[in-house]
Amino acid sequence: MEESLFEKWRRTHYSSEIYEELDGKDVIVCGWAENFRDLGNIQFITLRDSRGKVQITIPKKKVSTDVFDATKSIRQQFVLGVAGVVKANKEAPRGVEIIPSEIRIFGKASHPLPLEPTGKIPADIDVRLNARILDLRRPECRAIFRIRHEALQSIRKYLSREGFMEIQTSRIIGAASEGGSALFPLDYFGGKAYLAQSPELYKEELVTVFEKVFEIGNFFRAEKSHTRRHLSEFISIDIEEAFASAEDVMKVQENLIAEVIEHIIQSCNKELDILNCKLKKPDLPFNRLTYSEVLEKLAKNGCEIKWGEDLTTKASRLLGEMHREEFYFIVDWPSETRPFYIKPQENDPKICYAFDLMYEWIEITSGGARVDSKDLFIKRLKEQGLNPDSFDFHLKIYDYGMPPHSGWGMGMDRFMLVLSCKENIREVVLFPRDRYRLVP
Amino acid sequence: MEESLFEKWRRTHYSSEIYEELDGKDVIVCGWAENFRDLGNIQFITLRDSRGKVQITIPKKKVSTDVFDATKSIRQQFVLGVAGVVKANKEAPRGVEIIPSEIRIFGKASHPLPLEPTGKIPADIDVRLNARILDLRRPECRAIFRIRHEALQSIRKYLSREGFMEIQTSRIIGAASEGGSALFPLDYFGGKAYLAQSPELYKEELVTVFEKVFEIGNFFRAEKSHTRRHLSEFISIDIEEAFASAEDVMKVQENLIAEVIEHIIQSCNKELDILNCKLKKPDLPFNRLTYSEVLEKLAKNGCEIKWGEDLTTKASRLLGEMHREEFYFIVDWPSETRPFYIKPQENDPKICYAFDLMYEWIEITSGGARVDSKDLFIKRLKEQGLNPDSFDFHLKIYDYGMPPHSGWGMGMDRFMLVLSCKENIREVVLFPRDRYRLVP
Repeated sequence: MEESLFEKWRRTHYSSEIYEELDGKDVIVCGWAENFRDLGNIQFITLRDSRGKVQITIPKKKVSTDVFDATKSIRQQFVLGVAGVVKANKEAPRGVEIIPSEIRIFGKASHPLPLEPTGKIPADIDVRLNARILDLRRPECRAIFRIRHEALQSIRKYLSREGFMEIQTSRIIGAASEGGSALFPLDYFGGKAYLAQSPELYKEELVTVFEKVFEIGNFFRAEKSHTRRHLSEFISIDIEEAFASAEDVMKVQENLIAEVIEHIIQSCNKELDILNCKLKKPDLPFNRLTYSEVLEKLAKNGCEIKWGEDLTTKASRLLGEMHREEFYFIVDWPSETRPFYIKPQENDPKICYAFDLMYEWIEITSGGARVDSKDLFIKRLKEQGLNPDSFDFHLKIYDYGMPPHSGWGMGMDRFMLVLSCKENIREVVLFPRDRYRLVP
Repeated sequence: MEESLFEKWRRTHYSSEIYEELDGKDVIVCGWAENFRDLGNIQFITLRDSRGKVQITIPKKKVSTDVFDATKSIRQQFVLGVAGVVKANKEAPRGVEIIPSEIRIFGKASHPLPLEPTGKIPADIDVRLNARILDLRRPECRAIFRIRHEALQSIRKYLSREGFMEIQTSRIIGAASEGGSALFPLDYFGGKAYLAQSPELYKEELVTVFEKVFEIGNFFRAEKSHTRRHLSEFISIDIEEAFASAEDVMKVQENLIAEVIEHIIQSCNKELDILNCKLKKPDLPFNRLTYSEVLEKLAKNGCEIKWGEDLTTKASRLLGEMHREEFYFIVDWPSETRPFYIKPQENDPKICYAFDLMYEWIEITSGGARVDSKDLFIKRLKEQGLNPDSFDFHLKIYDYGMPPHSGWGMGMDRFMLVLSCKENIREVVLFPRDRYRLVP
């Protein structure tokens, strides 16, 4: 059996966050060297761990010659283990410092580094993404992904409590289930397959078994447009509910958002400060504007959109200006602008039960009531120029007893823009993928 | 705005599970018709919802002629809304029945159905998977996926509480990061990419930022062998921890398993009964056998494995017989049997810090301490016939300060075999993918 490598050097359970409470205690801490000052008879190192930073103070008089001399070889981003005692010191950045009895170097770093990882020197997003692992060490990045972690746990907790069951569907699909455009083709044991753009049809099928389902996972879109809100691989949060109307699942959406924001405000206070991001819990219910109302509003502000057309980026930007720091729904979209699986309204089939959830000018979520009749589903496919034969796998589910149902798909990465006050989706994704970026 | 479709027909909050407590109350319930009896003056329908079944009793004398006549048109798997009153009745299967005042048909089903969805007629796994949505309506299947939901929530809760941060890495990768065999190739905007087999290198890189990370998601392996424990798309649970030894992360693994099993025993009592699955909380710590000890044990039982070779299926089966209903680790594997990123032991590099977690004869988890020196990483790549140039994206991370670290990858689907007492991995995956199956 392996002897623990770290018998002596085990990291203490104390994270660097709570050193303030440890005055006088012996601790062992591991982390990365970040800043240095050498005043001759006294050296300082700032040590970063995953939760914060602490000052290591090395006074020649108080440490062994070995420790003092070894310290001189330490450079930026070396991985260190430090055993020492915590001392209160009002002059240290956080009111505490560690005086080491021993310093061990676990890993070295080569210089120059391709990026300054403390965040003091601004760098272009592409430079940053090329050295993403260094970039992520910046306090801002660490704050973003801590918020992301908390948001994910909060979302699942909310949905589970509301009776939604987690599903895990396949990403490799045999048929181009959403029309075929923008799909990545795949060689599957010599045959052809595709990467799923969403769990749309699977989740619709699964409500016939589990009634309320959700999935959070990676999905794929061969997205050619290169913008600050599109990626070719993204995380989608999907729900679907049987015996529910579009309005029912819009309520789920707004309650979910309010709960997650409240959780982030409570649990990520420090991270929001680092990001200078002032989140506030939104008022419920969110405003619901019809598509036609939106067109009128835009026209009054000099932006004409013809009824039946989708909103342009310019129009969305203008809408965003009218709805600063606001979530709002746009409902009652023209049927022809929406996918075949969205249900046209019975009393006016030109309009359908679709909604978008917007935050300022960004579409966060898209959803609606779904077609629950086989004949209508076939009619909708044909209207959109699709071949019903390609959907036989899904059409047969209508023969097994299909309930009315509604759902939505929410862009986790776009929601993260709101939760971290960021504008480029590449900021909130660990390893973003777009048409021009496949590494790291 | 949409008028709620279900203003009148909204499902009650009462799930079918708790009708026993509702004697005399008016309820509305929606679900699928499953069993019928027509005694002339009285008809019975069993209505299934996502959580259970309830008897609808339609006595000619007590319901309107409309309701009584409409009932005759209802067939297996029709989707119904039933408004009525709950009555205690000792002769009804669960001691309660609903006498309807109105029945609405939301969706019809065509007959014959390709599968008998109440589970009374056994069917071959392929027949079942071809009509998976009907198959999933069987009580056994619904129990399996309810357990899966609870297990997933419990796993994330445990890991979050232990300080692991959830990461979401890319599935589309530019380089064949784990050696290139068994990868699915992908057309990426005219270039070549691959589907990730695991988040191995990403998670190792991310411990240099976040120290403790986990990811749960779909991964892909062009697996040619067609067995009851392999799929080409699977859910992996991955953790990685900086400043931790193999033994440290083995402790995380065994504690996680014990906690999840305890949670399932508490929260899925009814589901375990349906599956006739007697789960018991395992004793901690799990046994740790060295690879050499395992070879001796096998040899004593007439199964010779040459030192340095992997265990055959036959050997695993034999081991399983010696470890009935037991989790156990196999440690200290020969370095040559393990991937390049596993760290050889300092005092005997023929052996490495790798472990497998076994349950009976099935490998659930594979993990170990990782190579934390760049030179050694390059050496290991060469030993395994791989070209270090293909790994330059990862090798450079060693120049940014790489700590010692360890981790594991656990097969969620295999773990589910244990949690549901099943033997074929296709039973515990909603839409399994293998060499011969790409639909539904």
